[in-house]
Amino acid sequence: MIELSRRNLLAGAAAVTAVSPLGLTGPALASAPPTGKQNAGFYRTKLGTLELTVVTDGARVFPLPDNFVRNAKKDEVNAALRAAFMKPDEMVIPFNPTVVNTGSKLVLIDTGSGPGALAQTKGAVGQFQDNLAASGIQASAIDTVIISHFHGDHINGLLSADGKPLFTNAEVMVPAPEWAFWMDDATMGKAPEAAQAAFKNARRVFSALGNKVTQYQADKELVPGITSVATHGHTPGHMSFNIASGGQSLFWQADVTNAPALFARNPGWHVMFDMDAAMAEATRRKVYDRLAADRQLMSGFHYPFPAIAYIEKDGNGYRPVPVAWNPSI
Amino acid sequence: MIELSRRNLLAGAAAVTAVSPLGLTGPALASAPPTGKQNAGFYRTKLGTLELTVVTDGARVFPLPDNFVRNAKKDEVNAALRAAFMKPDEMVIPFNPTVVNTGSKLVLIDTGSGPGALAQTKGAVGQFQDNLAASGIQASAIDTVIISHFHGDHINGLLSADGKPLFTNAEVMVPAPEWAFWMDDATMGKAPEAAQAAFKNARRVFSALGNKVTQYQADKELVPGITSVATHGHTPGHMSFNIASGGQSLFWQADVTNAPALFARNPGWHVMFDMDAAMAEATRRKVYDRLAADRQLMSGFHYPFPAIAYIEKDGNGYRPVPVAWNPSI
Repeated sequence: MIELSRRNLLAGAAAVTAVSPLGLTGPALASAPPTGKQNAGFYRTKLGTLELTVVTDGARVFPLPDNFVRNAKKDEVNAALRAAFMKPDEMVIPFNPTVVNTGSKLVLIDTGSGPGALAQTKGAVGQFQDNLAASGIQASAIDTVIISHFHGDHINGLLSADGKPLFTNAEVMVPAPEWAFWMDDATMGKAPEAAQAAFKNARRVFSALGNKVTQYQADKELVPGITSVATHGHTPGHMSFNIASGGQSLFWQADVTNAPALFARNPGWHVMFDMDAAMAEATRRKVYDRLAADRQLMSGFHYPFPAIAYIEKDGNGYRPVPVAWNPSI
Repeated sequence: MIELSRRNLLAGAAAVTAVSPLGLTGPALASAPPTGKQNAGFYRTKLGTLELTVVTDGARVFPLPDNFVRNAKKDEVNAALRAAFMKPDEMVIPFNPTVVNTGSKLVLIDTGSGPGALAQTKGAVGQFQDNLAASGIQASAIDTVIISHFHGDHINGLLSADGKPLFTNAEVMVPAPEWAFWMDDATMGKAPEAAQAAFKNARRVFSALGNKVTQYQADKELVPGITSVATHGHTPGHMSFNIASGGQSLFWQADVTNAPALFARNPGWHVMFDMDAAMAEATRRKVYDRLAADRQLMSGFHYPFPAIAYIEKDGNGYRPVPVAWNPSI
């Protein structure tokens, strides 16, 4: 009764090529033109009494740079991509800001690259504002924006394409050690030429806010339920967040790893964006050891949307186990 | 610089409990009432020139029955749930029909439990029609409905809550061996009492269509790009589908496994719904061996939405690797 074989499958595929009229017809004759439109990129889940909405800013797709992993050969990186069923010689990096509704505050954690990225990436990145609106939340309703660190894909979304503040009613909270590093003229003066653009970008973004920010330290409850956790290394003042309510919690790791298929599976690998690679690796191992031991829910800014997972140990590394999409809430 | 410790995290959590005003305020004082509304449940992807839209019917959540896995102890099942970071003593079974737009035909594979299930499950199941509409597809635009097998969660969605056909312009294609089994009076007469409801349900559904169906055999190209594959065992005439276009393909496995956290990881386990458990297991091992060897993309009706994955071997079983959500198309 079981008539499953590779021969049958290939015969089926061959038959398509041979008899399908698709190649000759084209859209003009189609009774059902494809929509070409993806679902809105938001996902909602509860954490105790909190309502979390992961709102994706999209994903960047680019040829794998030779030095994307500083301390691994391109062949090794391609082998890891293949093991994750991803294309070789290509990187896909998603961006996933998160809105936390505490019941009294609407809090955004990180902002994506901003609508200005839409034109530059042909719509691939800069989707946050559209997806936020699709989720039923207006930017003007955000009470607090918490920033994890000052890389452009986390802060540029504070501004519109023409450089105006987007979260007009929000307090913007930034890591004090991050502010101290990027906004200090002496530090900028000593930084290599290649880093100047990032210094200039941070100053561009925050000057558009009149430099009106609230600096925060580690281990502080920034709003009810969201506590800052120092996870330095990726940048000098990089922060993560422990989000907790009603006995449940989620560790919002920001950039403790970049793409998990590479850097959770190989925690010793150094992504080109890590500013202090040794410290970033030490942070990563400590965070992932704890996440695996505690079986704590987590979210990664560069994880595939909806970017919520558990972490298990696997060989010398870690494997994210994505949570199942809940069609209700 | 790294000040991450379990103590700090727990202190953060405790602080929430101690100082958060949430317990005293409630929604009336909230400046940001939670929306309580999940995103629409559809996901779109391309396969060669085909456009696939996975449209979820929702997910059923119920206490784990003692005999859910016929040949495993409840403790073993709970251990597998824990390994998958799922709750013990509870089953979550999602339902994921798929629309294939071939450019000339709009084809639906399986239907979910129908809008009649919404009231019975408080909205958890029966979401297909709403999600289909949200995806921009009208039920009346469906040209062909292909049915994998005659269990209610696959065929009941052919009808509205009051028993009227929903796909008014569609040809309905059913497996010939499935039709021969469920619609034969002698077979029904010989079937045990517990199976009578399924026979009656199949007759209820198809009689509402005036029994106007097209029976199909295995290894037939049903519409351009979609070929039937015999994967019997779960039911006597259970079929899967090989969907192929432009050198790409996806194996739509229907119910070769139920929840993958249990039955892909443990292919020797027999779900209570498998009608010929030995044949279903042989089919499952054959299909999953091939999927892993060929690294072919696949979709499982009872996989977590959006239900598209690759399969890798892992120990004595298999592990699905979900594809990354593509925020664009």
